[in-house]
Amino acid sequence: MDIEKRLESLRRILKENGLDGYLVTGTDPHQSEYVAPRWRTRAFISGFTGSAGTVIVTADKAILWVDSRYFIQAEKEISGTEFVMMKLDTDDPDPYQWLEENMEKRARIGVDGASISISLFGMLSSRLRASDVTLEATGDLLDPIWEKRPDIPCTECCEMEAEYSGKSAKEKVEDVRAFLRARGLRWTFISSLDDIAWLTNLRADDIPCNPVFVSYAFISLSKAVLFIDKKRFSDKKLLQGIKTVFELRPYEDAEKDLKGLAKGAGYYSPEKTSEAFHKALSGKSNVTGRDITTDMKTRKNEAELKGMRLAHIYDAAAYVSFLARLDRNGKYDEIEVSALLENERKKIPGYLGPSFNPISGYREHGAMCHYSATKESSSEVNGHGLLVLDTGSQFEFGTTDITRTLLFGDEATEEEKRDYTLVLKGHLALSRQKFIKGTRGVQLDVLAKQFLWQYGESFYHGTGHGVGCRLNVHEGPLRISSALIDVPLEPGMVTSDEPGLYKEGRFGIRIENLLAVKEDMTTEFGTFYSFEVLTLVPYERRLIDLSLITEEERKQIDDYHKRIYSELHELVDKDVLKWLETATSPL
Amino acid sequence: MDIEKRLESLRRILKENGLDGYLVTGTDPHQSEYVAPRWRTRAFISGFTGSAGTVIVTADKAILWVDSRYFIQAEKEISGTEFVMMKLDTDDPDPYQWLEENMEKRARIGVDGASISISLFGMLSSRLRASDVTLEATGDLLDPIWEKRPDIPCTECCEMEAEYSGKSAKEKVEDVRAFLRARGLRWTFISSLDDIAWLTNLRADDIPCNPVFVSYAFISLSKAVLFIDKKRFSDKKLLQGIKTVFELRPYEDAEKDLKGLAKGAGYYSPEKTSEAFHKALSGKSNVTGRDITTDMKTRKNEAELKGMRLAHIYDAAAYVSFLARLDRNGKYDEIEVSALLENERKKIPGYLGPSFNPISGYREHGAMCHYSATKESSSEVNGHGLLVLDTGSQFEFGTTDITRTLLFGDEATEEEKRDYTLVLKGHLALSRQKFIKGTRGVQLDVLAKQFLWQYGESFYHGTGHGVGCRLNVHEGPLRISSALIDVPLEPGMVTSDEPGLYKEGRFGIRIENLLAVKEDMTTEFGTFYSFEVLTLVPYERRLIDLSLITEEERKQIDDYHKRIYSELHELVDKDVLKWLETATSPL
Repeated sequence: MDIEKRLESLRRILKENGLDGYLVTGTDPHQSEYVAPRWRTRAFISGFTGSAGTVIVTADKAILWVDSRYFIQAEKEISGTEFVMMKLDTDDPDPYQWLEENMEKRARIGVDGASISISLFGMLSSRLRASDVTLEATGDLLDPIWEKRPDIPCTECCEMEAEYSGKSAKEKVEDVRAFLRARGLRWTFISSLDDIAWLTNLRADDIPCNPVFVSYAFISLSKAVLFIDKKRFSDKKLLQGIKTVFELRPYEDAEKDLKGLAKGAGYYSPEKTSEAFHKALSGKSNVTGRDITTDMKTRKNEAELKGMRLAHIYDAAAYVSFLARLDRNGKYDEIEVSALLENERKKIPGYLGPSFNPISGYREHGAMCHYSATKESSSEVNGHGLLVLDTGSQFEFGTTDITRTLLFGDEATEEEKRDYTLVLKGHLALSRQKFIKGTRGVQLDVLAKQFLWQYGESFYHGTGHGVGCRLNVHEGPLRISSALIDVPLEPGMVTSDEPGLYKEGRFGIRIENLLAVKEDMTTEFGTFYSFEVLTLVPYERRLIDLSLITEEERKQIDDYHKRIYSELHELVDKDVLKWLETATSPL
Repeated sequence: MDIEKRLESLRRILKENGLDGYLVTGTDPHQSEYVAPRWRTRAFISGFTGSAGTVIVTADKAILWVDSRYFIQAEKEISGTEFVMMKLDTDDPDPYQWLEENMEKRARIGVDGASISISLFGMLSSRLRASDVTLEATGDLLDPIWEKRPDIPCTECCEMEAEYSGKSAKEKVEDVRAFLRARGLRWTFISSLDDIAWLTNLRADDIPCNPVFVSYAFISLSKAVLFIDKKRFSDKKLLQGIKTVFELRPYEDAEKDLKGLAKGAGYYSPEKTSEAFHKALSGKSNVTGRDITTDMKTRKNEAELKGMRLAHIYDAAAYVSFLARLDRNGKYDEIEVSALLENERKKIPGYLGPSFNPISGYREHGAMCHYSATKESSSEVNGHGLLVLDTGSQFEFGTTDITRTLLFGDEATEEEKRDYTLVLKGHLALSRQKFIKGTRGVQLDVLAKQFLWQYGESFYHGTGHGVGCRLNVHEGPLRISSALIDVPLEPGMVTSDEPGLYKEGRFGIRIENLLAVKEDMTTEFGTFYSFEVLTLVPYERRLIDLSLITEEERKQIDDYHKRIYSELHELVDKDVLKWLETATSPL
């Protein structure tokens, strides 16, 4: 079996290098959340295909750590191999504790310096040092044993139209320089792929659903360098244009060139830059923090918001067409349901593809909040049950992310209605809340949970994540969750509003809209912001328990549905219009 | 004038010591929030009598920094002196920025090492070092020039009865030792006065309203030492008892003795221990954090909760008697109103005195949220207006803190009713919320603000602070506020719930109850906590706008009032009973 051979080869290499173990983080040289096939190192060595997990291989052990959403999948995927699963956030030791407890004194553990961030490497090194274990940034030790390893991706670059970017790459570079100047700094180095895509107004297709391209950017007060493969530009005019702003150098040269470029005090993100660049960036007077572009990108400008609004109107037109045509007593499997939605989306002008792999979870599958149906697991959607459908689109001008919980078959049970209504009440409370300037996500999180908590119910994923504009569907630094993160919500930020509830082995519920933060009013008490709801798809009225909602909530739902009708009625076919009328009529 | 002479003397001492400036923090050697007259150094040198502020005196400058609640008072109190006021949290530089900008290179600034915490001293030193300015822990340079300086307080110690402490000092010492043992540590040193009072089950009267005694405690695995003046024990039996647990040594010997005692790895709080002890505690393997006793003290045991409940019932009986007898069309000044309440409290068995200086603010005075009426400022309470009355009691068995906003004269205006109702809705929402184990105050804060924010209104003090049991009315580490503090609410913690609204120059509103955290339920989703409302005084029904409250809120108020009647009706006089019936009847 492949995995055993790979382990054997890796152990030989470890031995040759005098290493006692090897750590695989599974990310790419840009610390991406999702990675191109080229960097699916975790799957290559362990066979586990989930999106998060840590691998440690020593002379006699091969261990995979995963979090609760992957316990079942990981167990299945590593069965028959030497790999053992450890469960994160349980009584099992975490990978670093495991190393502390199991490695001999003076042991040396290797890790690919390109696929671990400077901050994580530093934190681990100092932790392991206390146990006299050394963490070493080696090269990628899987490379020599990876036959037919996928190439570094090199998809075609295209331009984000000025109408929807709202600011030229040249202006953005100048904004970055203004930031540097104001702090007496001379340069910044950017590894984060969605930051570079935003900065350059370019998009590509290197990572499924994430329209980015592998590259690095370096900006100083006088220079702007983009480390990128020129083959991406078959459009010579686009190439000429980008050359007026950036000097283009080969992607592979970034590490080598950076030392010469990064002179004087500069700025970089230790969370997003890989350890491989640490030496080049280790100047004493350098300043670290979130990438400068991250804070610029998160506040969408008017043109970006225009594109986001348009994307949501178009997406909603496809969504309501799907809902209108979906037979709630028909026979499908989970994958077929999401394929029906995808078919409607494909008819829409400007549609590029999904913004992430759709989640379509029926009954007990809906209770696994990151469930992804495979051909083998895909349940038949037939008879009474709830379906959690979490999907999203990339358009030429924006990105969507929406979850609706759909009722199939007979009328809902009292419990299903109560739970749906409690989730909905939280979802509505967050979206209608005005809040004073300076408010962080952690302060608003309870609004989405308050009603569930009264019944002893809760959910364990974030309530809201930032969303990019024709970019990654998960975008920092904004979060609405219980984490103490000091990032205030500011106008132009786009966040999801997605409370849920998961009853193991029975059913799941999640309701998700995207919201844009906007200025609301300034009074003697300060400036207040509120949310503009971007998503425009009716809630599942058969699941609303009217006895649990207040007059204010009823009005909020009715107004929302009325707005949906008014925005969509001219965009949908006749057969859909009738459904839309009913679905958006007052409760 | 005194201040000028004192400044002249201080400057002579600075010169003799080669110092370029002197910093006065105004706290005591225990980093107390309120200090005994002995340590009112800020007032001695500047004439400013408020409870917070920083003074810097250089060869040619004398500056006082205060926050917004003291702008008016400070201006008045320093007028006619050389002192200049600087406003904190405005465009004025803060004291440390001022030093950075105004001191010559190699300047030396003195500060009394006994009245600055290790953490603040460390933070400031390293900040000033960047500007080549040295902060030096000197002795108390005001002492030589302070004629008739009040003595170190030495009030009589008495015992907190076992019935209400619930745990002996001996057991508490053993709990501290268990904490040390579990972490492989050998000793701890405690400076914080309310921590020592809690640990020893002793109370005294060194600081007005704070029943503490100046002392230090040292606990090792084999020793327990209390640095305290033995003269405090005229009760020889009490002295004998305390000696079975603690070795008593003179208060003045703590600094000298600590070096010999603190052997091996130990534990202390750099926030609560003064810089003067830094050397004795600077062992490399020492661990720092909140005082061990702080986390024990904040979770009240059943006996302490019993005492707190009793204190609140008694206090409420006095409060409703006051309300019943208060003529809302009568003629008083602000001080007289709080004196009437104090008179009722004095009739109650076990009453010891106020837990803080009462705040009684009529009309525009109510809009100053820390207003304290003086003989000169005390307004006539006469005619239409709102009075914010924030008061509290010390009983032998517990501590209270309550704010009610009272309507005088005619019927309330629409605006007053709306604002009162918005504050009340937030106050009610917080107190009825169940929340999952692990929830911190910052996550709940919005519940109290959500309704105000919808109208562009807010308040700028904390929503909740911890409260001691026959101890300080402000007790750490719990806080409900917008600050990102990682302290989860746990059963037995007591917090205030006190949203407010302050319309400058017009009126103020604040409604405050104390709440105790309790276990509520455990479900498949986790363990949930909720609040027990301790305070038992009716809200001001003439200020409630019924059109703004939901059925749930109306029921919550009615149930609360019903409970008040049932708890109090046998405790009050006949003339009060009638008032109570009306005040607690359903809305």
